[in-house]
Amino acid sequence: MAQINQNYLKLPGSYLFSTIAAKVREYSEAHPEAEIIRLGIGDVTQPIAPSVISALHAAVDEMGNAETFRGYAPDLGYEFLRDVIAQKDYRESGCDIASDEIFVSDGAKCDCANIQEIFGMDNKIAVCDPVYPVYVDSNVMAGRTGEYDPETQRFGNVIYMPCTAENGFAPDLPAERSVNPDGCPDMIYLCFPNNPTGAVVNKDQLQEWVDYANRNGSVILYDAAYEAYISEPGIPHSIYECSGARECAIEFRSFSKTAGFTGLRLGFTVIPKELSVGGEKLHPLWARRHGTKYNGAPYIVQRAGCAIYSETGRREVREQVAYYMGNAKIIFDGLQSAGFEVSGGVNAPYIWLRTPDHLTSWEFFDLLLEKAGVVGTPGSGFGPSGEHYFRLTAFGNREKTIEAVERFKKL
Amino acid sequence: MAQINQNYLKLPGSYLFSTIAAKVREYSEAHPEAEIIRLGIGDVTQPIAPSVISALHAAVDEMGNAETFRGYAPDLGYEFLRDVIAQKDYRESGCDIASDEIFVSDGAKCDCANIQEIFGMDNKIAVCDPVYPVYVDSNVMAGRTGEYDPETQRFGNVIYMPCTAENGFAPDLPAERSVNPDGCPDMIYLCFPNNPTGAVVNKDQLQEWVDYANRNGSVILYDAAYEAYISEPGIPHSIYECSGARECAIEFRSFSKTAGFTGLRLGFTVIPKELSVGGEKLHPLWARRHGTKYNGAPYIVQRAGCAIYSETGRREVREQVAYYMGNAKIIFDGLQSAGFEVSGGVNAPYIWLRTPDHLTSWEFFDLLLEKAGVVGTPGSGFGPSGEHYFRLTAFGNREKTIEAVERFKKL
Repeated sequence: MAQINQNYLKLPGSYLFSTIAAKVREYSEAHPEAEIIRLGIGDVTQPIAPSVISALHAAVDEMGNAETFRGYAPDLGYEFLRDVIAQKDYRESGCDIASDEIFVSDGAKCDCANIQEIFGMDNKIAVCDPVYPVYVDSNVMAGRTGEYDPETQRFGNVIYMPCTAENGFAPDLPAERSVNPDGCPDMIYLCFPNNPTGAVVNKDQLQEWVDYANRNGSVILYDAAYEAYISEPGIPHSIYECSGARECAIEFRSFSKTAGFTGLRLGFTVIPKELSVGGEKLHPLWARRHGTKYNGAPYIVQRAGCAIYSETGRREVREQVAYYMGNAKIIFDGLQSAGFEVSGGVNAPYIWLRTPDHLTSWEFFDLLLEKAGVVGTPGSGFGPSGEHYFRLTAFGNREKTIEAVERFKKL
Repeated sequence: MAQINQNYLKLPGSYLFSTIAAKVREYSEAHPEAEIIRLGIGDVTQPIAPSVISALHAAVDEMGNAETFRGYAPDLGYEFLRDVIAQKDYRESGCDIASDEIFVSDGAKCDCANIQEIFGMDNKIAVCDPVYPVYVDSNVMAGRTGEYDPETQRFGNVIYMPCTAENGFAPDLPAERSVNPDGCPDMIYLCFPNNPTGAVVNKDQLQEWVDYANRNGSVILYDAAYEAYISEPGIPHSIYECSGARECAIEFRSFSKTAGFTGLRLGFTVIPKELSVGGEKLHPLWARRHGTKYNGAPYIVQRAGCAIYSETGRREVREQVAYYMGNAKIIFDGLQSAGFEVSGGVNAPYIWLRTPDHLTSWEFFDLLLEKAGVVGTPGSGFGPSGEHYFRLTAFGNREKTIEAVERFKKL
């Protein structure tokens, strides 16, 4: 008799953003007159930049012409895109990354979720707490974690690294393997600028993580999906700015937030060729996974991705980022002046606020939706240390963002 | 210390089509003057149909406009596409499938490779032999198989169902669970029209599989990627034409071959709501996987997919299929008249031929490339029973297909 993967049943409830969508749909149906402002899911609202639109139209025309039609993409992505990524995102900022270390995909979410497949089942993961739920959930599904404990809201066999106001939302290093082998992670998920807290680490702090990983034989899975939002100097855009990162780190990047590609789907993963664990290189394993289980991002979308690296394209997407960061400042300043305790929002499109009156995150979600018609994301959905916190995104349009802040002030 | 997933090391060599690409590249570099004709990888050559191109342009314009911009797609696909699929591909041909049983994705390859994740690790798989390598390889990577035996060219703990000239390339039913529990599969991968043999089963034969699965508690994973190529009556286009299939079968469909979307990436998976194993429904598990590990196919590509269901779109893509099937007939008739033993090519874009002089599949691959400059696919790459066979595809253009057949005749 066939059996299901029982690990799926360990996941409590549904995926965070599906739950939010369902709650909002329900509220919306009950209050058809309510003008809901969505600062919840991290989805962008600005249209795709003009030079990207032009590139898409041109590529679509190529697909309609027998001479220029493209079928299956190369397994790891078109060279025109991998070359420009390696050059513009890495080598121009001093990171030694080659084109053939770039794996183009349909988004960082998929890559972050799938990367665990190339690791052994006995590996122990460490995650920031709170953090984007995909890292833990994908490992739960694979069976790399223990059961969920509703009491602690934690899965067994996972090292949660609390990120709180006390440590500036930057996790402390776990125990060294020499001291406590059980407390030393094999796979360390880091996400900076952080989703959901908007926190960053400086280069010295990140270097400590790289050194830790190299000392302890850990691999860092570095999610840099929000690097385009870094506004302050001294904050690393890539983990490969740290020395020794080529020996211990995989990096994920996304076009979703950099250039509004949430509905176009494009991202990439960097695996340096020397990165190996237990004597086995990871690069060929991920290449094998791509070849066997994936068929490449659409040609037209890869052309669109390429367009953001042109001079005009770069200017346009930077203007979009600046627009969103303008929203971030409005939210940050507005909520702070209204007496909320806020952080993030300076190097990231997320504002992290402490719920008032010690409300739980979901209590505040319901209150905010019902009293203000504003949708945010409960901090507890990102991990137990996110309880009593709440995430707002800067991805709305300006007018609605201002309106949302006004509604907050009247709460 | 981090460890890799050792199961990856069980896979011998690289993915079949990557190996072929490397061999062709090598030959091409050594013989820059050679005009190579590629009838190997199942990639299409006709440009995207005009009405699909129009839909793409219109959708691209929507993405460039703030009022019509679309961000993240709904988890399971846009309703406009799921509705038209359910209506046109299923209900109009008498199959009881609802829109919310359709999961839109970026292609049948990914879905076929990922579906095994929702099943338990102790499940035993059965595959046609020869068949598309992704079914076995994805299970090898997950650890559901034993080691590879180079002698038999088989993985342990996999039921290979030989498809040979003797059984008309349609597999025999495995042992019943009541008779031989060890010989009864839990997950049965079927692919009709078959890749690589081009064989089909009629409705009575497929009904036997459905009945077998329901009697034995097996789930059928039915890959119908080539259904658009069925030309004869009495051949089922969907497994849901069989009674009881809603209780035991998942179906995969692709836009790649139906409408030339190999470079656009679109497919879908059907999971009926009542399909359950061990009391657990599979629909919510796959929905959970989509929600956690995937972010939807691009909006513009989903619009493109929708366009093939319009009256004009349908006519255009049927003309493409007819064009390829014209090629199939040219190859089939030409090779047969040249004395080759051929099958397939009537309800599928693949011609399956026995290698001459008892050459191995790879020997014939090399001979054909060197003597005729024609690239095909070695049958042994699809499974041990494919040895001494060879696959040719009808996806070339007409002129080159005719030229390839002429070169075959001179071999």
